[in-house]
Amino acid sequence: MRVVLATRNAGKVVELQRILTGIELLGLDQVAAYEPGPETEPTFRGNALLKAREACAATGLPSAADDSGLEVDALNGMPGVLSARWAGRHGDDLANLDLLLGQVADVPDDRRGARFVCAAAAVLPDGRELAVEGQMRGTLLRERRGSNGFGYDPIFLPAGSELSSAELTSDEKDAISHRGKAFRALAPLLVEALAG
Amino acid sequence: MRVVLATRNAGKVVELQRILTGIELLGLDQVAAYEPGPETEPTFRGNALLKAREACAATGLPSAADDSGLEVDALNGMPGVLSARWAGRHGDDLANLDLLLGQVADVPDDRRGARFVCAAAAVLPDGRELAVEGQMRGTLLRERRGSNGFGYDPIFLPAGSELSSAELTSDEKDAISHRGKAFRALAPLLVEALAG
Repeated sequence: MRVVLATRNAGKVVELQRILTGIELLGLDQVAAYEPGPETEPTFRGNALLKAREACAATGLPSAADDSGLEVDALNGMPGVLSARWAGRHGDDLANLDLLLGQVADVPDDRRGARFVCAAAAVLPDGRELAVEGQMRGTLLRERRGSNGFGYDPIFLPAGSELSSAELTSDEKDAISHRGKAFRALAPLLVEALAG
Repeated sequence: MRVVLATRNAGKVVELQRILTGIELLGLDQVAAYEPGPETEPTFRGNALLKAREACAATGLPSAADDSGLEVDALNGMPGVLSARWAGRHGDDLANLDLLLGQVADVPDDRRGARFVCAAAAVLPDGRELAVEGQMRGTLLRERRGSNGFGYDPIFLPAGSELSSAELTSDEKDAISHRGKAFRALAPLLVEALAG
């Protein structure tokens, strides 16, 4: 069963292929030459569905997508859907992370709670839609630690872990991460939908 | 009646003196040499009270303070209490404003609501405390307009106004602003408390 994953990030295809066993994932670069629109929805779920719909419409194939980000308690849940463009432009991980550290510099240790959230969605050519969410709770560090992962991983300490998200191996992170949880929840639903 | 205003911003003393008639306002520079601590409270009210308590403790005089900021709907009410340090350091108005414009660049016109909020507080040497709030609703512009005011004024269009906050004169702004409303509400309470 072939499913388009609405991303041009080859690393994400590899990561999710590990989780979505029984499905052959295709990155956008392999199937379609279209320019995804801006992620204008106010929720992760909305953006994940928007990207999956777009990919399904462009390719005619079942398509999956995710949207994820970091919700910081002291920022009323922001950066949230703006996580990847928090510093005002897209995809500058270091600028986003440094900005966030500066914004919460005066926030005391007992109010530094945060959670990573991932919405995973799938859209089938017949119009059926699936969407699920996963989360990973933790706290914000005051300095970067570790060099694995990406985004805000170096300043996030998962609850119950002594290592930051960027100090975990890929497998360790998959096991507890928001994205791992969301796609493990999506997998059986998608397999069933594709079979039915 | 003399009241310390817990600010080193001479412009703010002048602005509030216009509103707080019947009270002689003293800026911190006129009365005390202490370094105010960081504004660590999660609410405007909490920070205003914190600053007023600090000034009252340091000077032994009745003290007033305000804390204010911009709550953006699409950012779940942020920058909020972090308005003056949104770009990660204190008081760089242009950096804060440009960052905010970038963050909401993809937010469509019908979701660009925002409000300025001001908490005004007073603390008397006998321990009595007063706190009130004022707000001004409006929408976020996409480019700066006007050169009056400060902070986010150039990108804020007050509800019912065709001019940005930075295109209004001081008097026009006082009449509708969050700070004007809060201190006009505080004034009679403070006069009464000082008399009683």
